[in-house]
Amino acid sequence: MIIKSAEILCVGTEILIGDIVNTNAAYISAQLSELGISQYYQSAIGDNSERLEHCIKQALSRCDLLIITGGLGPTYDDLTKETVAKLAGVRMVTHKPSLERIKSFFESRNLTMTGNNAKQAMMPVGATVFENSCGTAPGMALEISASRFDDGSEDIYHAAESSVRTIILLPGPPHEMKAMFEDQVKPYLATRSDEILLSKNIMLFGISESAAEYVLSDMMLMSSNPTIAPYCGDGEVRLRVTARAKTPEVCEKKCAKAIEQILHTSVSDYFYGINTSLEKAVVTEACKLGLHVTTAESCTGGLTAGAITAVPGSSAVFDGGVVTYSNDMKKKLLGVRDETLRDFGAVSPETAGEMALGALELTGADISVSVTGIAGPGGGSEEKPVGLVYIAVASKAGLTNHPSHPVLCHPSASVCSHFTSDNTDITVLRCQFSDSRERVRTLSVKSALAALLSALRLAGTRKKH
Amino acid sequence: MIIKSAEILCVGTEILIGDIVNTNAAYISAQLSELGISQYYQSAIGDNSERLEHCIKQALSRCDLLIITGGLGPTYDDLTKETVAKLAGVRMVTHKPSLERIKSFFESRNLTMTGNNAKQAMMPVGATVFENSCGTAPGMALEISASRFDDGSEDIYHAAESSVRTIILLPGPPHEMKAMFEDQVKPYLATRSDEILLSKNIMLFGISESAAEYVLSDMMLMSSNPTIAPYCGDGEVRLRVTARAKTPEVCEKKCAKAIEQILHTSVSDYFYGINTSLEKAVVTEACKLGLHVTTAESCTGGLTAGAITAVPGSSAVFDGGVVTYSNDMKKKLLGVRDETLRDFGAVSPETAGEMALGALELTGADISVSVTGIAGPGGGSEEKPVGLVYIAVASKAGLTNHPSHPVLCHPSASVCSHFTSDNTDITVLRCQFSDSRERVRTLSVKSALAALLSALRLAGTRKKH
Repeated sequence: MIIKSAEILCVGTEILIGDIVNTNAAYISAQLSELGISQYYQSAIGDNSERLEHCIKQALSRCDLLIITGGLGPTYDDLTKETVAKLAGVRMVTHKPSLERIKSFFESRNLTMTGNNAKQAMMPVGATVFENSCGTAPGMALEISASRFDDGSEDIYHAAESSVRTIILLPGPPHEMKAMFEDQVKPYLATRSDEILLSKNIMLFGISESAAEYVLSDMMLMSSNPTIAPYCGDGEVRLRVTARAKTPEVCEKKCAKAIEQILHTSVSDYFYGINTSLEKAVVTEACKLGLHVTTAESCTGGLTAGAITAVPGSSAVFDGGVVTYSNDMKKKLLGVRDETLRDFGAVSPETAGEMALGALELTGADISVSVTGIAGPGGGSEEKPVGLVYIAVASKAGLTNHPSHPVLCHPSASVCSHFTSDNTDITVLRCQFSDSRERVRTLSVKSALAALLSALRLAGTRKKH
Repeated sequence: MIIKSAEILCVGTEILIGDIVNTNAAYISAQLSELGISQYYQSAIGDNSERLEHCIKQALSRCDLLIITGGLGPTYDDLTKETVAKLAGVRMVTHKPSLERIKSFFESRNLTMTGNNAKQAMMPVGATVFENSCGTAPGMALEISASRFDDGSEDIYHAAESSVRTIILLPGPPHEMKAMFEDQVKPYLATRSDEILLSKNIMLFGISESAAEYVLSDMMLMSSNPTIAPYCGDGEVRLRVTARAKTPEVCEKKCAKAIEQILHTSVSDYFYGINTSLEKAVVTEACKLGLHVTTAESCTGGLTAGAITAVPGSSAVFDGGVVTYSNDMKKKLLGVRDETLRDFGAVSPETAGEMALGALELTGADISVSVTGIAGPGGGSEEKPVGLVYIAVASKAGLTNHPSHPVLCHPSASVCSHFTSDNTDITVLRCQFSDSRERVRTLSVKSALAALLSALRLAGTRKKH
């Protein structure tokens, strides 16, 4: 049986009152896309048996596969399994391996298992059970004959392909759901799709989404396999290239060709990698060159270091960094001069430069990046408004050799000074961000990472010569 | 006209292929909850006119208010406004103030306005237009007589209360949508609801959700106004107390009474504040006591400092901190001894203690917290598995006076040593987290903040005596 179309239904009152963001739907959608299974509808409802039954019937009238998350818990308002069994017209029986697993889950934690936990081991007859490696509620898949749902309803927009419909039930907690999907549901579904989708993400920094779209609009409109779609977030643009074919190899080839075409356009000036992030690109590049990097942060307060160290293996190129929030710390840890702070202030190209220089000296790294700015909401002035941020990159002399400018920078940014001091090259960027404190900090981190990456790439070019 | 029930429909293929997480739905749900407007369904569909029309009709058959996000852009696949106008049976006309705003948006950015941008200023006759302060697409509200949708369909589960239905269209980009909702939609809706909801969040750290539920189950089952609901995430439990009444004052009173009852139970051992976060509580407590805090981080790589500095005003109590990822940096910046690293390793109570001590000396703060651990995925051993993390809090002698243990710690954590060194009290916690690198780091940051907060609260108690 081949599954062509799917729907996702997320059950939980906490979604409807806005208490949680429905990340499960996005995760499952992305997974289904990769498996080549289309979706036309997604829904969320509360913990209500009547509405659940209605939604399941409606979904099964228009798709081959319905994935439901949530409502598998032990309490009275967890109704999903019971509702599905009723619709399928099958009994619920105890699934012994699940009961054993639940028992040992409680035993290993020295907890008392209450009666309602045993309810979690009850499964509709005929279900394929998915083990829960992170919690107590098992998941399941159940195939149901379409005749049970064919009520001649008018809203069958996308009639399912087959005479059998599949319902998959997954637990609501995202980490339980993801582990189950990855380990068990994906292999289960992979055999039920006749084509696969494969996506590659072309990562750009320093160009707006509309500018990228302008450059590529003809290419995007004319492409159907692979498709090209731009997405933006936090100052970055991601071009998603998606190919559909019978095998991964054919998909790879189709993607590679499209990527080559795209990188022949002017967006290549903003390109930093495929399927990566700025922090991963920084760590990869530094590893390749055998160079150590460091950070000196004021307004970003440790988040740049936090991003770099999020990358497994970053310890090979990052020994440490400092957060110098007050002027005193900038002087004490980084050797920023009293006169500099007095004459130009903490948020100035001069201070940024001395911070970057100090960080090199303090840590012995090859390249450093510093960030100082006004994250807001308070602290701005007419001369130095909220969102003004200076970013400096310092590197041992000759390593980057006065780059004319870092290649990758936010559209609002420009190079405001270069200088050499104590055998060190320093380049300072001036950025003006807008929006909230959170966003100013996020864009500052991204810009700092991009500046660091640009310096590393330049160092790589120099090394070759 | 009073609005009792609403539905949210998010339009955009990027949602269905899992390329973005639908945060708009969660935001609007939370806002509607506050306004006392109930929801029973949420859906998402792609950029498809036929399905859009079907979903609008279905939604209007079962609610008073339908909020649609997305599809207001300038391109061919943005169809929401046109579809709604067609359903309402009204013409589209140019809304001149919107056209002027769009023109000046382009002029101020020195960009050429193309013809399709003018399309964004077209509005259905009779619509209330909402200005877009962050982008080009205006939003709108339109009231439609219910008779246009009453097709006798069977799936009218929650028949709307009134004979007039309201459709609100909002732009898809979250920052545009939020600004518009906050400034214009909320006041528009506030006059159309006869009761309000008000929620207070009781924040707990160190207790599992099931344990909290066990303690409070009777209270939760018996409460209807206010309701009490537990939510968990990243090792924290949030108890949401929600009251419904005609005025905020009555809501406040109802909530206060329930909170008092809850804090009379054993969950109060894990309580750290109302409507706050660990980092906000740390900054608030430190400000109150006039004490400075600092951080020395290894496996969390700057994220603890990043969390503290996310709080506006944190500069009053946080001067800076260090990220010491390598052993060399631990020695150089924090004075961790060679012998300690050699005999006990970087991930040990001894190293954590010396890191916290070194951070106090380096920064001159009153209380410091250090974190060292194995975040994974590599680097673990049988003796020191991935997820093993030591957290130390050091404070000037007498300030916290050998706390028997920090009050707030993750269920997996326990105090493994106290000692006094150089007039400093040091307490070390041993934590064993599981799951991914990201989650180990997140739980480590939360635990470090909780340990810091516990020390501050103890210092506050001492100060009073």
